[in-house]
Amino acid sequence: MKINQNFDFTEEFIINNYLSKLSLNKKGTYNFKNDAAYLELSKNKKLVITSDSISENIDFFKNDDPKSIATKIATINLSDLSAMGTNPKAYTLNLFLPNYIDKTWLKIFSKELLRIQNKYNFYLIGGDLSKSNKLQITSTFFGLSRSDIIVPQNIIDIDHDLWVTGEIGDSFIGLQILKKRIKITNTKIRNYFINKYHYPKPCMLGSKINKYVSSMKDISDGFIGDLKKILNNNYGAKINTNSIPISFNLRKIIRANIVKKKYILNSGDNYNLICVAKNTNRKKIFNIAKRNNVKISLIGKILSKNKILYDSNYTLDIPKEFDHFR
Amino acid sequence: MKINQNFDFTEEFIINNYLSKLSLNKKGTYNFKNDAAYLELSKNKKLVITSDSISENIDFFKNDDPKSIATKIATINLSDLSAMGTNPKAYTLNLFLPNYIDKTWLKIFSKELLRIQNKYNFYLIGGDLSKSNKLQITSTFFGLSRSDIIVPQNIIDIDHDLWVTGEIGDSFIGLQILKKRIKITNTKIRNYFINKYHYPKPCMLGSKINKYVSSMKDISDGFIGDLKKILNNNYGAKINTNSIPISFNLRKIIRANIVKKKYILNSGDNYNLICVAKNTNRKKIFNIAKRNNVKISLIGKILSKNKILYDSNYTLDIPKEFDHFR
Repeated sequence: MKINQNFDFTEEFIINNYLSKLSLNKKGTYNFKNDAAYLELSKNKKLVITSDSISENIDFFKNDDPKSIATKIATINLSDLSAMGTNPKAYTLNLFLPNYIDKTWLKIFSKELLRIQNKYNFYLIGGDLSKSNKLQITSTFFGLSRSDIIVPQNIIDIDHDLWVTGEIGDSFIGLQILKKRIKITNTKIRNYFINKYHYPKPCMLGSKINKYVSSMKDISDGFIGDLKKILNNNYGAKINTNSIPISFNLRKIIRANIVKKKYILNSGDNYNLICVAKNTNRKKIFNIAKRNNVKISLIGKILSKNKILYDSNYTLDIPKEFDHFR
Repeated sequence: MKINQNFDFTEEFIINNYLSKLSLNKKGTYNFKNDAAYLELSKNKKLVITSDSISENIDFFKNDDPKSIATKIATINLSDLSAMGTNPKAYTLNLFLPNYIDKTWLKIFSKELLRIQNKYNFYLIGGDLSKSNKLQITSTFFGLSRSDIIVPQNIIDIDHDLWVTGEIGDSFIGLQILKKRIKITNTKIRNYFINKYHYPKPCMLGSKINKYVSSMKDISDGFIGDLKKILNNNYGAKINTNSIPISFNLRKIIRANIVKKKYILNSGDNYNLICVAKNTNRKKIFNIAKRNNVKISLIGKILSKNKILYDSNYTLDIPKEFDHFR
């Protein structure tokens, strides 16, 4: 999505040309090619750090329920920690608040954060408040991890299994309905999708399977786009599109020709995990997911050549991933 | 400074009513009554965390040199770490970028950050980029510290010495010149003050004297305002106004009746440290500062009653501190 035509830098361009040198090539920064980073604390202990911002008109809208906005700032950060194989310990919150923020807004927003904190067992450690003409929120999340169970984004090998947790596409459909690009008359189904867009849930399976996967990444900008970041121009993948997990309701509207399946392959705002693992760990991963009531689907495998193949080896013309910065 | 009349929440009101409950009363959060916080890593190791944002039109102006903006986001965070008695290890950077940001801006901004990183020995560990209509920057800084040398903001006692590092007021005068509230015709002196406003320096003495002080705080919103935060409604202070350290140039314009001394007592954007320490540590503190080429001045002492007295026990009508949120 292009937010502004005049501004033609991509996030990647700015990172590569101006910011990456600031990492001083330190271990744990991954030269900013990983969604999260770590700080080495001792030989066997690391602090996992992830930092994400959300902005009015880009990641949410002015009149969205503050509960939804609280859910989003927590979910995008929680799923990054999960993808690193860890759980949240604490977070900071930096709020840029416009005039329209009132007591009711603050009450609902903070109450929802407290609920999420209690659910996943972490606390607010600091932050600050600023005035702004648009609502913008930055949050930095911290997790503590043993060194041997940190899971980066790009350690993969040929023939590794490709997994995805949960279901993809629902949140994207919700956004398309709100943008009036898709029309669904059935109120119940319509609300189902909109709800999925407003209240994304992080998949916190990461810390449970960290010993059995080589790489993980949360789906934030789109399944194929995020998969490409895992492949990192070094590998390809074969994907069985029939194995891509989609909800009952999404299957329904695909059958009704309201949306094509290939359009949801690159849908974002999902926050499930893409996992890459040796096929010898297949049973183990499946069983842990089952024990934790998390749906997990084996959807393909890693290829040597830098290409994504679908089903009987054909390529698909998938819509481009969402670049939240453009 | 009141930024918007319609928005009548103070930062304190929002923290006390909506955010403080999110700390879950955890040690290290200080219930958000300290500029920085810490995360307990092990019995004898703590991660010190501070997070600050700066915004266009509030903390800087659109056409300011990107070098100045880089200096500000680093300085406000570095001085918070120093006040906790620690040094920087790494930081995250969240940039909200408007259209007018171009390659030259990014080049100068990142080059200056790199220079500051090299000077104080820390690196960029992560962050993110967002689009915005105004330039806003959040940065979270991390320091590692032994548990016994963390210096909080509010551990003080009667008769403790009150110290201040460096000189106060210059940056404030620079801002008043830019706002055309003060007119100085001598170009050299004029530029001296403006430069102090644009390029504040953190006082990194904190980690050197952490064993000999009971409390420290950086001067961000104004000397008296920040001192009051140290006193925390529990203590008072007696201040010898003649001992308040001011620069040669500031002394000059006070003598010329361009500005009254009492108006600089609550001037912000300073980033020197207010230190509170037992008087038995007086010599030690003075010598360490001298060895590190840091000017330090003994300016008063802590009193039992909740009042600030100046010189011969009279009170002064000092302008209110800067509330960066209003």
